[in-house]
Amino acid sequence: MEAALCFLLATTLATTSQAYQSHLLPHSGGGAATSAAHRLHHNKISCSSWRLAVETNNTVGWDIVPGECAEYVANYMLGPQYPEDCFAVISTALAYAKNLTLAGDGKDIWVFDLDETALSELDYYSLPDVAFGAKEYNSTKKKEYQKKGTTPALPAVLELYKELVPLGFKIVFLSASSESNRESRVSNLKRVGYHTWEKLILKQTSEHGTSSLMYKSKKRTELVEAGYRIMGNMGDQWSDISSSNPGNRTFKLPNPMYYVN
Amino acid sequence: MEAALCFLLATTLATTSQAYQSHLLPHSGGGAATSAAHRLHHNKISCSSWRLAVETNNTVGWDIVPGECAEYVANYMLGPQYPEDCFAVISTALAYAKNLTLAGDGKDIWVFDLDETALSELDYYSLPDVAFGAKEYNSTKKKEYQKKGTTPALPAVLELYKELVPLGFKIVFLSASSESNRESRVSNLKRVGYHTWEKLILKQTSEHGTSSLMYKSKKRTELVEAGYRIMGNMGDQWSDISSSNPGNRTFKLPNPMYYVN
Repeated sequence: MEAALCFLLATTLATTSQAYQSHLLPHSGGGAATSAAHRLHHNKISCSSWRLAVETNNTVGWDIVPGECAEYVANYMLGPQYPEDCFAVISTALAYAKNLTLAGDGKDIWVFDLDETALSELDYYSLPDVAFGAKEYNSTKKKEYQKKGTTPALPAVLELYKELVPLGFKIVFLSASSESNRESRVSNLKRVGYHTWEKLILKQTSEHGTSSLMYKSKKRTELVEAGYRIMGNMGDQWSDISSSNPGNRTFKLPNPMYYVN
Repeated sequence: MEAALCFLLATTLATTSQAYQSHLLPHSGGGAATSAAHRLHHNKISCSSWRLAVETNNTVGWDIVPGECAEYVANYMLGPQYPEDCFAVISTALAYAKNLTLAGDGKDIWVFDLDETALSELDYYSLPDVAFGAKEYNSTKKKEYQKKGTTPALPAVLELYKELVPLGFKIVFLSASSESNRESRVSNLKRVGYHTWEKLILKQTSEHGTSSLMYKSKKRTELVEAGYRIMGNMGDQWSDISSSNPGNRTFKLPNPMYYVN
């Protein structure tokens, strides 16, 4: 990736306000095709395109943020775009939720993931040795952070929660983080404004070998078998909202900092 | 949406290159929460956030591009970002394809959608009365355009195709566009560089009442039942790559111009 080229393209796009003209249209033959072949074999991907590929589940199974995109991701997470992008997801989710007619039997649920969904670990990810996912993942350090129970709410998601509860949705928090931190997670959630929920499902030690995708899929299936209807399901990972019983509608919050299988 | 605010935020983000500082971190209480609630009820979504919500399948079932985002979408489609975003998808798809070991029995297939995937209708969408999806959809006019058989290839996808064929993948084009245009679509594909394929599946008149999602799901299931293995599946709509037998890996190309159910 070429950061300078990426920056040049971004600023050109941002500062050019000219109307589109048909002679600007790309064509398939000659130059354009040659250029595409060249790019395909030289792996010139801008950080903006990398982030979109991550968010759309095209680029999967990555370990850490590419070094070339470390500063880009930091700026995205701390700039206005990340909260705006979160807010856009919540806005479309709320419009959907308000249009539903619930059965009123207490079985209509909304599933939320915890980290980078109900809660925002930005204070942790901004630590120099975490660097918004550009450094290798340290599970011990992360678990210690979560044990402190001081994680702030993700503001947009908290606002959605505050709307869903009076609409009659029961809330289920479903997280692949450890059951051993239950006590601190409960006090954490309550302190930042999540005062009530139907279930808080955390991962047991016996389930540690299972991928988040399979674990969450199994837990959602258990919920459905217990008579619950998953009206909405929201997470920052595709593994939160894929596979069995994903929910009537799923909502993907942005997260270019890490990938969970 | 407030275009002026959106522009201000975008240019602020583009021109600010300061390193992140922990005091810039958002917090869940007080101001941030109030701001989130305010935004939630005043529907202030930037066009960039709208596009991300569309690409991640959060915002669904929309008819036309919101008026406030008409110029933004036009600039995106004709600027450097759209081909870059397409190229990033193709790059990750090719890396995946090259790592596979095929059975060599001619049953490993790669499924491509046609419009805004194998082919790019940008010349059609740039017409003033189409306006990159900001005007009401005209199915008659679109069908007449497709009948001409003059649609250019989407350069990045053509390059991927050129790599996949010698790797041993059989190509299946699966489109919800009309069977009645088969002849012109065949000549169109061949002329722009798609010279060989296993199947070109188009929608029969009898299937016109079926959603694209259900139609494509059914056709993929028929392929699997015929012994094919869908190793990759690429489209510009979530309805191309969702529901039954989506494929071992799916790839979502960008398209903020229209939504197909």
